[in-house]
Amino acid sequence: MSGRTGTLLGVGLGPGDPDLLTVKAVKAIRSAPVVAYFCKKGRRGHARAIADPWIGPESVELPMAYPVTTEIPFDDPAYVAQLSAFYEEAAQTIAAHLDAGRDVALLCEGDPLFYGSYMHMHVRLKDRYPVSVCPGVTGMSGCWTAAGQPMTWGDDVLTVLPGTLPREALVRRLRDADAAVIMKLGSHFPKVRDAVEEAGFGSRAFYVERGTMIGEFVTELRAKIDDSAPYFSMILIPGQGRRP
Amino acid sequence: MSGRTGTLLGVGLGPGDPDLLTVKAVKAIRSAPVVAYFCKKGRRGHARAIADPWIGPESVELPMAYPVTTEIPFDDPAYVAQLSAFYEEAAQTIAAHLDAGRDVALLCEGDPLFYGSYMHMHVRLKDRYPVSVCPGVTGMSGCWTAAGQPMTWGDDVLTVLPGTLPREALVRRLRDADAAVIMKLGSHFPKVRDAVEEAGFGSRAFYVERGTMIGEFVTELRAKIDDSAPYFSMILIPGQGRRP
Repeated sequence: MSGRTGTLLGVGLGPGDPDLLTVKAVKAIRSAPVVAYFCKKGRRGHARAIADPWIGPESVELPMAYPVTTEIPFDDPAYVAQLSAFYEEAAQTIAAHLDAGRDVALLCEGDPLFYGSYMHMHVRLKDRYPVSVCPGVTGMSGCWTAAGQPMTWGDDVLTVLPGTLPREALVRRLRDADAAVIMKLGSHFPKVRDAVEEAGFGSRAFYVERGTMIGEFVTELRAKIDDSAPYFSMILIPGQGRRP
Repeated sequence: MSGRTGTLLGVGLGPGDPDLLTVKAVKAIRSAPVVAYFCKKGRRGHARAIADPWIGPESVELPMAYPVTTEIPFDDPAYVAQLSAFYEEAAQTIAAHLDAGRDVALLCEGDPLFYGSYMHMHVRLKDRYPVSVCPGVTGMSGCWTAAGQPMTWGDDVLTVLPGTLPREALVRRLRDADAAVIMKLGSHFPKVRDAVEEAGFGSRAFYVERGTMIGEFVTELRAKIDDSAPYFSMILIPGQGRRP
């Protein structure tokens, strides 16, 4: 045994199709002795499912189950405290493997540094251990690919908005955008759809569910008349900038 | 010979490191009989260089050289006309292979539908031939990975801005952003740097050159005191949103 510390590898998995992992991500998953991932209690988790074809039988798996499964508002102090304690414990669990000299590949949907759960471990461990991030195809790239829509041309400004914002904020920011992606729809979908209409983008907006995954669904926003939208859904407003 | 038409494959190459191609992109490049790419006259081109380890000796290569190598303002009508004619000719060249039943993999740096040169072929050919896009890791993901900076947390709004915008527009949009990426720096760099300072983000901005490529260079923006910036450089302003 050498005294060498293990490396924390933040591995981007891309938008959902297992073939959309990068070559570097596949190498990281195959070479790391420990493969860690976040999941909901009692579930295998979405990240684990995407990486499934690439995880070898000799890997030690480290599932880390979130303490809550129901939707509590993110600004609830009790929830934030619970989540913070959970991330601390997860960081310690990972650190124990790193201390023992084992590299840990932490799976992360999309791109690890773009709204990624990996970031909570990165900030807690980067000053104590070597870290290496493998960027991934973002969920939004997966969605506009599913829709077959070029998103940004020439000098287009792209605005990426969480659907959790208040309606007025969404309308104001959309009016100032050339192209826009609205993520984290879920129960916010009806409000977001109204905001898109009010901002004048109703006729060129698309709704995409599970882009690049099994069950992928794409439609013009105006053709989606029900109010339900899963977490893995987005609204896209493609830009119309300069195109010679 | 069957009468089957070939498929146009828009293949995202990612930010520069050849290992950041997706598994799907590698398969597309290896299976398509024709590999096409844009380049500057007399150069092999950046896309071709990234894909180099993945192109087999049996592939027919189709380099398509831009008619101009010097920087002419994009709004110059003569330039737009020249570029438009070039794209028409390129589309016809690709179409000839598709008509003969040969799939054409068109290489594209980053993600094909995000400020990608592929889009100019996509809009010209998608109604006449089958098209299939393989999304890629964006150049901006490559840059924030190089900088080791988590970019967006919780409800952060991300704004992606071209450095070609006027200074006042940059300042106004930056003031309204939680996190921002400014691309296409080049000769616009000094103006953009001033705009970042005026918007109050000088102390938390990073400058990244050739992210994930040979010659990668990362620094705090304020530590970059010269005025030159190549095309493959970006300024990043990481968000500071909710983090339990």
